[in-house]
Parts: sequence; structure tokens; C-alpha cells
Amino acid sequence: MAETLLLGVIGGMGPLATLDLLQKILASTPAQRDQDHLPVVTWNVPQIADRQKALAGTGESPLPQLLHAVEQLNRLAVSHIVMPCNTAHHWYAPLAAASRAPILHIAQVTVEQVARLSPRPARVGLIATQGTLAAGWYQQRLAELGIDSLLPDEQEMQQWFVPGCYAVKRGELQTAGRLLQQLANALLARGAERLILACTEVPVALAAIKSPAQLLSIDPTAVLAQTCVSLWQNSGHQFADGFMQQTTL
Amino acid sequence: MAETLLLGVIGGMGPLATLDLLQKILASTPAQRDQDHLPVVTWNVPQIADRQKALAGTGESPLPQLLHAVEQLNRLAVSHIVMPCNTAHHWYAPLAAASRAPILHIAQVTVEQVARLSPRPARVGLIATQGTLAAGWYQQRLAELGIDSLLPDEQEMQQWFVPGCYAVKRGELQTAGRLLQQLANALLARGAERLILACTEVPVALAAIKSPAQLLSIDPTAVLAQTCVSLWQNSGHQFADGFMQQTTL
Repeated sequence: MAETLLLGVIGGMGPLATLDLLQKILASTPAQRDQDHLPVVTWNVPQIADRQKALAGTGESPLPQLLHAVEQLNRLAVSHIVMPCNTAHHWYAPLAAASRAPILHIAQVTVEQVARLSPRPARVGLIATQGTLAAGWYQQRLAELGIDSLLPDEQEMQQWFVPGCYAVKRGELQTAGRLLQQLANALLARGAERLILACTEVPVALAAIKSPAQLLSIDPTAVLAQTCVSLWQNSGHQFADGFMQQTTL
Repeated sequence: MAETLLLGVIGGMGPLATLDLLQKILASTPAQRDQDHLPVVTWNVPQIADRQKALAGTGESPLPQLLHAVEQLNRLAVSHIVMPCNTAHHWYAPLAAASRAPILHIAQVTVEQVARLSPRPARVGLIATQGTLAAGWYQQRLAELGIDSLLPDEQEMQQWFVPGCYAVKRGELQTAGRLLQQLANALLARGAERLILACTEVPVALAAIKSPAQLLSIDPTAVLAQTCVSLWQNSGHQFADGFMQQTTL
């Protein structure tokens, strides 16, 4: 039995979003016993510079701490790394260059999921930090599929997104959910057929208020979790009940 | 600002109990921002021999994998280690001997919490694996406080505890909760004033069904989480709002 997967998670951005990923990995695994679950090492160290402030030019870069996390996970011989924080993917290139283990890109796996939707949406709304929106990871990949991106405007960002995101970090999930649902509704009202919750704090907040917007949303944390479970299934793990699926996700 | 804490978690026994600890650490932390949360590295690798079977003489010892986990966490220079699995404390002595970082003992911190209860109970029921019950960690420490321990009988273990515990590992939390609540009720009916949920699968199951038995229960996972938060507060971390509490737990 070749157990070749050892997943490394660069967490802490924020800590709750990290647990959300770990929870979604567990929930996506067809496990009948402890040993069927993915082996995961999580570096959940939130003493890292604020990503949004760094990109806005008002704070230090988190790159040194991100590189440290990559180094530590590689010391433990992880086979793959994931990072449940969209904004931190701003530093994806230097991290991937420094890592022996491949780092899955959250926007890449998410847009691959969008490509499999049937019917494929013509216009997708993005809920993300200014840094993620400015980087264009989602918009460029969606454009390659012929999908238009609809972004929040500046007022929507300041009124709903930013306070909603930081409310999650304070553990105020109800407040966060109400704020972010207003943003979701505004994007849907402007013609988005689907939403990508491209900040890992957002699905946590919408779930906390059981927001109906979840039904039209694609959750990159969940896609990342499912991708990790597929890696595990395809690594040769034999499940207790003989379940062995070559998933196409 | 001296950030001297780096918590290491030996998880995977089971994976859901590990997430339960991480969730309870987050919930117990007076955080206003990501950076206020504890730095935690979690080795959540469930490819480890079944503890209950090992102690029953029907399976391999998990000690080699536990020692590997201790070694890996020490390589990352963790300052303290916790193990959210009571039964695995059977191997506490060799693990503690092999670890540079001190390993908190789950029964020790839990009984210290019991000692602070007012009024102090005269009789406490234990819900635990056969291995934990046979080891006597809880009974001996409770006896030093003049507290009697009430244990499940063999039929209760086979009928309720064992299937309840393994149902958690399959993710069947409702089934698990109903089984374990019956055991809790039986111990309370026989005169237990409080219960110690001394298997980390049990609080997860009772929470899933919102069991009223939780009100009379001491949850070692929660106590371990609070102990970790106290370590963080006492390590010199400056919280965002200036909150700095020397907790007595």
C-alpha cells in the first residue's frame, strides 16, 4: 500500500479559514475509519504580516514568514502544499520556486471546477480582497473560458467586503455573514449568474448565517479540499470498504 | 514582543477529535485579529495503529508512529505538545522521554480543572476506552482529591461506548451521539454527579445531538484547549486590544 501523500497546509490566514479547509477535507473523504483520512500537516501560525495591508502599501510583506512556512513544511517531507488564503497567492511564484513540494494554486483549481459546470455561466461575480482582484488570477482564467467577471465597486468593497472580512477574523461570524451577503446580493442583482467566494473568510461567514447565496456560489476552499481528497484517492490509498475512486472531481 | 509559544499537536486519533481541539482553541482565544491566535502546528496523520486494538492485544502498537510524530514536531521547534487522544496517553512516558518540548498530559490538566470545581463532586463518571479506564489515570488523580470514580460496566462498554466511538470515526455523529448519551444517562442514573468525557470522540458526538448531558460533563478537549490559551496568554503575547490576562484557567 503506497501512501505517498502527505499534505502540507500553510494556514493562519486566517486561522478560522484554515480550520474550514481541514473540516471540508474531512467532510469530502469517504472514510470508514481514522486511517482512511488524509495525512495532513498544518502550519497554522497567524503571526504573519497582514496580506491586505501589505498589498495596499500600508504594512510589511508577509513573504519572509510565508517562505519560513514553506521551508518548515518541506522539512517534514510533505508531498503537496495548499494555502487556504487567496490573497497570499500574490506571493505564489517565489513560494513555488522555494518549495520542493508542488503548491496547488487555489484560483487554478477553482476555475478548473468552473470549467466543468454545465451549463457554464456567462458572467461570474468575484468576492475577494482588493489584492486578489487587482492580481487578476480569477478574471484571466475565467476570460480564457469566455466567462466575464463582475467585480464589486469601491463603495461595495469598503461598505461590505472589508468590514465583513475583518469581522471573521474577530470571530463575529453573524455580523460578517450579514455584510457579505449584501455584497453577494448586489453582484447577483447586477447580473452575476454565479459567485466565486475568492477570499477564504467569505464561505465561513455565509455558512454561519445559512445564506441562500451559497447555492449560487463556488467555494474555492471546498474545491481545494476536494482536490486534496482526489490526490489522496489517486495516491493509491485503499479505503476500508474497498472504495477506490479515480475521481474527476 | 516575545512570542515564545509554538504549540505542537499530535493529531489523527481521530482526525475529527483533532479538529475539535483546534476549534476549541480558537473559540477560547480572546482574539481581535488573526495575529492574536495561537501559533499551532498540527501533525494530523491518522495512518497510525488503532490504540484500542493495540491495548486489547489484537493489533500493532502505535508507539513507532507516535514517536515519529514527536520527532517531527520537535524538528519544527515546538515549545509544547498536546495529544487530543486519551487512549494514546498509554504511551505518554516514552513520548515525554523522547521529546524536548514538554507534553501536557490530558488527564492531569482535566483533573486540575475538576479540583477547581465548587462544589466539588463526590462521584464522577468516566466515559473512556477500556485502555484509558484500565490505565487508571483519571481514577488515581480523582482519588487523591477524595473523589470516587464510577465506570461503565462491560455491557455498557460493548453496547454503547465501543460502537459510539467507532461511529464518530465513520463520521456518523448522530448515531454516535445517541449511543453515548445512553451511556451518559446510565452513569448519571447510577449516582455520578459529573461526567468526564475522557475519550476525545465523545464530546464531538454529544455536541452533535446537543445532548443535555453536556451540562454535567467535563470535556478534556476543552480543558486542554483552555490550558493552551493560558500558555499563550502567559507567554507574553500582547493582544490587539491590550487584553493581557494572567489566567488561572
